Amino acid sequence: MKIITTEDRLNKEIVLNLVLDLSIMDSMNELNREHMLSAIDHVKKHICDNDGGPFGACITLGDKIISLGRNTVLKDMDPTSHAEINAIHAATKTLNRIDLSNCTIYSTTEPCPMCFSAIHWARISQIVYGTNIDDVKKLGFHELDISNETLKKLGNSPIKISANFEREACEALLQYWQINSGQQTY
Amino acid sequence: MKIITTEDRLNKEIVLNLVLDLSIMDSMNELNREHMLSAIDHVKKHICDNDGGPFGACITLGDKIISLGRNTVLKDMDPTSHAEINAIHAATKTLNRIDLSNCTIYSTTEPCPMCFSAIHWARISQIVYGTNIDDVKKLGFHELDISNETLKKLGNSPIKISANFEREACEALLQYWQINSGQQTY
Repeated sequence: MKIITTEDRLNKEIVLNLVLDLSIMDSMNELNREHMLSAIDHVKKHICDNDGGPFGACITLGDKIISLGRNTVLKDMDPTSHAEINAIHAATKTLNRIDLSNCTIYSTTEPCPMCFSAIHWARISQIVYGTNIDDVKKLGFHELDISNETLKKLGNSPIKISANFEREACEALLQYWQINSGQQTY
Repeated sequence: MKIITTEDRLNKEIVLNLVLDLSIMDSMNELNREHMLSAIDHVKKHICDNDGGPFGACITLGDKIISLGRNTVLKDMDPTSHAEINAIHAATKTLNRIDLSNCTIYSTTEPCPMCFSAIHWARISQIVYGTNIDDVKKLGFHELDISNETLKKLGNSPIKISANFEREACEALLQYWQINSGQQTY
């Protein structure tokens, strides 16, 4: 019979912790995926209404969705009615505070500099996005083409950024808009 | 008697045009001054209400004021209720369009990156501002410290920028806020 040494026990513990960590990461990724898909679905539902660009956002706190937003620039006749701004408005109302620390925002497309700065003002901790500003500039939107990473670096912002998350699903949303809407840009 | 040559006539014309240009510039500067003072007055009237930061904006088209805005972040419990955003909302309603081309925005303080980008989206042609982002960061506001000139350059934006306009009057507004309000920052 093999004698189990202290070293064996330590090694076993390390492996078990690693499996546990990977399992937690898996379930977190699955949750992140669900949040992004919620943002996509929220836009798709209204795509034929031509209310604005094909962009959605979802704000979460822990594993709970606090708000959903979609671009309604044309419907509201308001150049600031972007998905992220609408989601921030709804989240501050729901949580009854302007400080959204510890919240995460999922954006189907990389937030434009207006929205990145609004996210900074709201003290949201993390941005997770799919397609990037370049992708939608090509569709004809009057984008100020400055990446979130550049803004974070220049402004010395503590915001965490995760790019290219569920990129294929977010690209499919842009294609869905091209097929099913009047493709009105601004 | 001195004979007036063609050259004399041309020189006289040049001088007359120069005097006329200077006179037009003088009256334009006076008008610009009035627009900035309107933005300052709009903030001062409400300074004791503690509705938000001591920042005002005025949007003009030609020599006509289209809208006034002031920061109401705390009153509205909305981190995006900056003076410029509020002024853009009001201007789009007044002009019944999202495109504010040929408009000028006067900001008592350099627009933050959120507002600069909103101004870009609204296609406002010119920004005229007094104090700068650094001045108000020192007061305790959670500014993303990126200048308008940097954003213009990086984003390749056509917006014209005039800095330090009526700077003393705009500095006096910040001091007025320090004396007469609860100095609540966010």
